Amino acid sequence: MVMKDRSYTFVVDTRRSPHARLRPIPIESVHLEDDFWAPRLQVLREVTLPSQYQLCEETGRISNFRRATGKETGNYQGFYFNDSDIYKWVEAVAFSLASKSEQKLQELAQQVIAQIIVAQDQDGYLDTYFTFDRKKDRWTNLRDMHELYCAGHLIQAAVALYRVAGEDTLLEATCRLADHIASVFGPSKRPGTPGHPEIEMALVELYRTTGKEDYLRLAEFFIDNRGKGVIGGSPYHIDHKPFRELMEIVGHAVRSIYLNCGAADLYMETGEQALWDTLVRLWQSMTERRMYVTGGVGSRYEGEAFGDDYELPNVRAYAETCAAIASVMWNWRMLLISGEARFTDIMELALYNGVLSGISLDGRQYFYVNPLADRGQHTRQRWFDCACCPPNIARLLASLPGYFYSLSDRGIWVHLYAQSTAHLKMNGNPVTIAQHTKYPWDGEVELILKPGKETPFSLYMRIPGWCRKAEVQINGKMLEPPIQPGHYVEVHRSWRAGDTVHLSLSMPVERIVCHPLVIGNNGRVALKRGPIVYCIEQVDNPDSDVWNLVLPTDSGLEAEWAPDLLDGVMVIRGEALALDVDEFKGYLYRSIADIPSKSRHVQFTAIPYYSWANREPSPMSVWIHFSGSLSSR
Amino acid sequence: MVMKDRSYTFVVDTRRSPHARLRPIPIESVHLEDDFWAPRLQVLREVTLPSQYQLCEETGRISNFRRATGKETGNYQGFYFNDSDIYKWVEAVAFSLASKSEQKLQELAQQVIAQIIVAQDQDGYLDTYFTFDRKKDRWTNLRDMHELYCAGHLIQAAVALYRVAGEDTLLEATCRLADHIASVFGPSKRPGTPGHPEIEMALVELYRTTGKEDYLRLAEFFIDNRGKGVIGGSPYHIDHKPFRELMEIVGHAVRSIYLNCGAADLYMETGEQALWDTLVRLWQSMTERRMYVTGGVGSRYEGEAFGDDYELPNVRAYAETCAAIASVMWNWRMLLISGEARFTDIMELALYNGVLSGISLDGRQYFYVNPLADRGQHTRQRWFDCACCPPNIARLLASLPGYFYSLSDRGIWVHLYAQSTAHLKMNGNPVTIAQHTKYPWDGEVELILKPGKETPFSLYMRIPGWCRKAEVQINGKMLEPPIQPGHYVEVHRSWRAGDTVHLSLSMPVERIVCHPLVIGNNGRVALKRGPIVYCIEQVDNPDSDVWNLVLPTDSGLEAEWAPDLLDGVMVIRGEALALDVDEFKGYLYRSIADIPSKSRHVQFTAIPYYSWANREPSPMSVWIHFSGSLSSR
Repeated sequence: MVMKDRSYTFVVDTRRSPHARLRPIPIESVHLEDDFWAPRLQVLREVTLPSQYQLCEETGRISNFRRATGKETGNYQGFYFNDSDIYKWVEAVAFSLASKSEQKLQELAQQVIAQIIVAQDQDGYLDTYFTFDRKKDRWTNLRDMHELYCAGHLIQAAVALYRVAGEDTLLEATCRLADHIASVFGPSKRPGTPGHPEIEMALVELYRTTGKEDYLRLAEFFIDNRGKGVIGGSPYHIDHKPFRELMEIVGHAVRSIYLNCGAADLYMETGEQALWDTLVRLWQSMTERRMYVTGGVGSRYEGEAFGDDYELPNVRAYAETCAAIASVMWNWRMLLISGEARFTDIMELALYNGVLSGISLDGRQYFYVNPLADRGQHTRQRWFDCACCPPNIARLLASLPGYFYSLSDRGIWVHLYAQSTAHLKMNGNPVTIAQHTKYPWDGEVELILKPGKETPFSLYMRIPGWCRKAEVQINGKMLEPPIQPGHYVEVHRSWRAGDTVHLSLSMPVERIVCHPLVIGNNGRVALKRGPIVYCIEQVDNPDSDVWNLVLPTDSGLEAEWAPDLLDGVMVIRGEALALDVDEFKGYLYRSIADIPSKSRHVQFTAIPYYSWANREPSPMSVWIHFSGSLSSR
Repeated sequence: MVMKDRSYTFVVDTRRSPHARLRPIPIESVHLEDDFWAPRLQVLREVTLPSQYQLCEETGRISNFRRATGKETGNYQGFYFNDSDIYKWVEAVAFSLASKSEQKLQELAQQVIAQIIVAQDQDGYLDTYFTFDRKKDRWTNLRDMHELYCAGHLIQAAVALYRVAGEDTLLEATCRLADHIASVFGPSKRPGTPGHPEIEMALVELYRTTGKEDYLRLAEFFIDNRGKGVIGGSPYHIDHKPFRELMEIVGHAVRSIYLNCGAADLYMETGEQALWDTLVRLWQSMTERRMYVTGGVGSRYEGEAFGDDYELPNVRAYAETCAAIASVMWNWRMLLISGEARFTDIMELALYNGVLSGISLDGRQYFYVNPLADRGQHTRQRWFDCACCPPNIARLLASLPGYFYSLSDRGIWVHLYAQSTAHLKMNGNPVTIAQHTKYPWDGEVELILKPGKETPFSLYMRIPGWCRKAEVQINGKMLEPPIQPGHYVEVHRSWRAGDTVHLSLSMPVERIVCHPLVIGNNGRVALKRGPIVYCIEQVDNPDSDVWNLVLPTDSGLEAEWAPDLLDGVMVIRGEALALDVDEFKGYLYRSIADIPSKSRHVQFTAIPYYSWANREPSPMSVWIHFSGSLSSR
């Protein structure tokens, strides 16, 4: 595997997609220099990715490939979809190499790729589970057996690798697999659709990479085949209705959102209005009624599924890390289509909270499930039998620089903020943008533009929806209001080297209240500052039970930088009333008349939700009871 | 089937159980004359039981018996455990006949019994699912296939029928089945234990009825075989540990509690301390940490199971009707063993709330799942594919008169209160006790005793644990305090005809608060009056959303008799603040700073929880947010 001179590692390559408003910039064009993401990407390269390789070896995931070619004997190990973990790891390494070349990772990936390639059959089929005795069962159970899911991840890995390194042997192998699938399934061939969507978005991306329209048509075929009963018709599989007739987001959350990603990718190529209308409907269903304040989704343990409207339990939140990642992927596609900041808002929310909670600060441990309240029983794991989340978070973090900017005909779009330097191109002219900011801890962002030569274009800067008040100065001159949070502000001018844009995004501590039909959150607030959702963890609050703090609605809340805590975080401090839990010793229910009326003032400290469970296990809660009802404030 | 002259229909026959403190009285000895239970038992006889028969016919449950004998052709219909529904229905009819002879029911039962009996194999085996081709699979999968569960229900039905009517053909058939089971399983025979406990308590009762110790030993064998991995070792099946080592109540709630019933029955015969210690431990685990305020249990949809400590979601409460029924059965046994009122308290709580919510006022519709809050989506059903609950509630209600009193060597125990006449015997002397009361709507109870001749004994009267203040007068003379709620008060004297005991059980409206670790109930109260738990249903409260009422802790609450509402109920009325849900239109989360501060005073009406969902579907909540935190009152 040779690193090419010129790479163009797009996360979703919409450069020629007729119905995408935005075009991607390569991962390698953005260099993160901040204290938030840059150290995480370093940990990813140096700790997470090598340790995941090790764990894949230990758990037989790589053996399965050697076994498939007869190089090893013994049984297939683990779940029938374990190939996908390897593919996601390869994709993560590919994205990571785009940011920084790393000899060791490159070599590991090379070994793995070699083993993948030789495991492929003559006819293009590739799935190490369906080998030997199980060969006869290939493609017989699309609902449960995840062959198309694994194929999709292989395609994504191969495409990423091709983009970052010009590595085309895996891409060629992948095309042979896709051709094989296209020879089995399609109109006038066998009907079918995957039980676990994933291949749809992969096939569209393979079409974008190879130009071969068969792949686009196959993706469309799989989407069109849903809701026809070919895989049983359950809402769990999002097969109860044709895709375009879906009114609410239901079913297994990751499957559901991956399907939406595929449909969004398809829309970008076909422009079919019914697809877009459905996607917007499902997005509203999710974000207005079925999403945690952390951006986590899929509230229900049963079926790892979306719950009913407003069904968002805190302790028994499922909120799988993969589902939050899927939400980032989906919102990214919605943003590429529309250029609308509402999608970026949700993407950012999920990223800083529901996704990031899924990996420990040291990059070695994971959450599969992300509760919003806990008694210290929910602890991070080194790995899982079903290990979808660890390599999934790895590939998202590795590709993160690619999410910071986009391009359109009129200009450059700034989606995310962090201390960084980006080398972009606008209408063929190089434009360097340096971001100077302490984001996400501070809302002051200075953008210094350096076009190769003076050139007119628009700079679209996202004003986050969480922002209470935003000001924009161009070279010290205030932009006329209104600057609307939740929208992109467009500044069109002829840009010269050294032009400076200053964004002031006011970032007070906010008390967030939840829709009153989320019954478990009535009378509670969540603390949020900028994009960061906070929680109170017992370990920081030894004087009172964190589940039983009562926060007066008018008490002061101060943000304070804690450089030595949790790798450096902004904490929120304030005063609250503490309820004495001991009054209930031995009682599950008591008459209020029998409970002594006491109040005790305590200081409390809240930390970013993403950083919880990085010390000793202890109770935690995102939602804090407040005193004085909302309506009687 | 001939009704005997003298029947003795005990619910659990502890007359000769050496380790039971209390002895049962026959169902037929208590005649309910109240406005609460008596009309329900009439509806049961006239509507519920005939309609359940009809539904059993319509759904093939009775056909399955005819099919087993070759009288009908076609496939076995429905779930493999459908025989048990028929058995529970027969048991319910038997108990019902004890209270009132009813020609039509008697004939229906007779037909059914005849069909059951002929379906039995030569060797005693009886299960209509395992016939023809499936004969070879008998006893091969005790974990999943419910053969022992069905056998247990047959035994209970046969015992009940024998007691009420001297009907011994079914009892004989049942003994042949039990003998067959004993020939297959046992020490030095095949190991085994049922995936769904039930047969244990049935076998102990069969032992009590026949005197044959083999049945007792077989029950013990099944209990002893748990936790040895013979059915897989899962907590779901309560097979992860030996019974006597269980520390917490876990697993499928009905299975778990049925097992405890069996163990309690076994204890009554053997007096094994480890059994009792385990039962008390599990009872505390349930009642102090894993039970709804309604007495409902089994909070988790996944596995219809007990959740973790304090895991008691309201909307997603499972709280299967059968589990609340099981709790009544278990607490009854714990009471019979100990004579302790804490068990009666929970039994009564479950009965008036978590059980009774499971059947509609008209006796024709059921809840399987009993949420404590709902948006009007959860509606009663006429029947279920898995129809365990309808005949289970029928057999409990039919046997209810048998739960009102017990006997011990020293006297008569009064457990439950309702306008009624009981014809009991104390040391061979007839004693009539008339209860004059409007219980459960009023706490004044007058007991008029009429012994055949003057006779000394103790009258043990339960002072309910919910009672704020209790007074007892004997023939107008006040009993010296303290009268302790949650205990039986013993009055020993030589009783003469006309002796009158007056109980004043003060029954104010109570605001109940929940243990602070039940996170969804923080800052909420449930309204309770006497044994009745209340809820607010939208249909009574058109002016505000019932999920979003805020009840000031110091506002007045009035109980008011509503004769025309829901067959006559005591409602609770008061004033609350209403939160306007419209402020959240389109928002799932908002900053508290953006929500207009408004409060609107509204009148509200709460109804008994058991009576909800008997009108048009509408939102409901048991727990009501209160204003002012508990600690800042």
